[in-house]
Amino acid sequence: MGHSGDAAPRRTLKLTVAYDGTRFVGWQRQPEGDSVQGLLELALRPLTGGSVTVHGAGRTDAGVHALAQVASVEVSCPHDTATLMRALNAALPGDVRVVRVEEAAPGFHARLAAWAKHYRFLLRSGGPASPFERAYVWHLSGTLDTDAMREAAGALVGTHDFAAFQSTGNEVSGTVRTITRSTLVEAPERPHPVAGEGLVAYEVSGNGFLRHMVRAIVGTLVEVGQGRRSPAAMAAVLSGRRRAAAGPTAPPHGLFLVGVDYD
Amino acid sequence: MGHSGDAAPRRTLKLTVAYDGTRFVGWQRQPEGDSVQGLLELALRPLTGGSVTVHGAGRTDAGVHALAQVASVEVSCPHDTATLMRALNAALPGDVRVVRVEEAAPGFHARLAAWAKHYRFLLRSGGPASPFERAYVWHLSGTLDTDAMREAAGALVGTHDFAAFQSTGNEVSGTVRTITRSTLVEAPERPHPVAGEGLVAYEVSGNGFLRHMVRAIVGTLVEVGQGRRSPAAMAAVLSGRRRAAAGPTAPPHGLFLVGVDYD
Repeated sequence: MGHSGDAAPRRTLKLTVAYDGTRFVGWQRQPEGDSVQGLLELALRPLTGGSVTVHGAGRTDAGVHALAQVASVEVSCPHDTATLMRALNAALPGDVRVVRVEEAAPGFHARLAAWAKHYRFLLRSGGPASPFERAYVWHLSGTLDTDAMREAAGALVGTHDFAAFQSTGNEVSGTVRTITRSTLVEAPERPHPVAGEGLVAYEVSGNGFLRHMVRAIVGTLVEVGQGRRSPAAMAAVLSGRRRAAAGPTAPPHGLFLVGVDYD
Repeated sequence: MGHSGDAAPRRTLKLTVAYDGTRFVGWQRQPEGDSVQGLLELALRPLTGGSVTVHGAGRTDAGVHALAQVASVEVSCPHDTATLMRALNAALPGDVRVVRVEEAAPGFHARLAAWAKHYRFLLRSGGPASPFERAYVWHLSGTLDTDAMREAAGALVGTHDFAAFQSTGNEVSGTVRTITRSTLVEAPERPHPVAGEGLVAYEVSGNGFLRHMVRAIVGTLVEVGQGRRSPAAMAAVLSGRRRAAAGPTAPPHGLFLVGVDYD
């Protein structure tokens, strides 16, 4: 298939990708280590007859997972989308799966065109940690006051300056973002109900997220849940715009990019 | 704590253990590689001041998981059960968790005293395999006729000679077992609904299982689900008592020891 792109027209593809982030350096290509972007570009090369650049909607960090990351890529190849999906999954390792391939409008860019992203962070408190959740759930000892956490989470909905929840050393010029949903839900049980209690999910949707923003929010919410801050503290941290006033950055392995919305 | 066992009375403990079997050579200690039994015995040693032998209710194979394996062990140590559980989990790797420690009657033996064991095998058909299920679900292409599979599964309920579902080369003298439940259920969704369809579980309970018996049953059920055998073939395979007449042995990674019953 190496020379099949010679006469094929330029097309833009929209890829929906699921991955277990455990062993990756993150979405983005790095000098060392496996990245999801790098593996996708490698898998596309024999299909397109040349190197391509894949753009992801969200640059997930090392250890962060995705149920439906969206990526765009410009290619010249004659294969239909079903053939491309099969060929990509045959070439990719099992911890990355392309779950959908669609034709996109010329120039479609997965990051620039995204108008909403949805993230989920899984937490469990109490009992021994399940062996089946150790790469997907942040396990905390003691109990969590989920009502207090839900109240605190709700304070983030709206258009705010989220500088307080941005990783230090990574300031970008604009730190105003619009959050449309920020709440705590009882997560559906898995088919591995070892402990069978306490699995909760923080769910957040917005038009954009600063670096480590969801994990800094979760770190702060957990301090609320543990009674070390009041629910009202969340609004104060937000308006103070100082990273030092927020809680610690939660570990990456509980975080999932759940989906990305486009027009 | 090394010498604490000197004056402590002999006690029998009942341990309930969950593990992700992916990287293990199985439950049972082997000359090479990590086993769950071996890790538990290693973790108990500093608590009991000497080497102990842990007996498991089911000798799960390499790659097979457990939600609630039960094990027994005789120890001489003064620690209460809560302290023992904490100390064991602190010493064990994250893919093995002791979820309960109880005092048992003197001489309690987890395998000999068990009167029922419950297993579950997870299957998914169609769509790309989820990255989050690759170590826990047998993924099959095409579709499965789950009604036909449920009918075939039901034929195994009762007291029968299960020689047809025993691994060749491992014949034991008695191959009669009583199966009290054998059915197909729609498995509850996980919080990672990538594909969101097609997850089914074969659930089987009985007073004992021959080596590879559940996996040989599942291999045969899948042939029924794929239309390569009729549901009625299951009863014929059973009564024929020839392993060659049954289907292939399903892979280990879909199988879970769900629980063990005692009086």
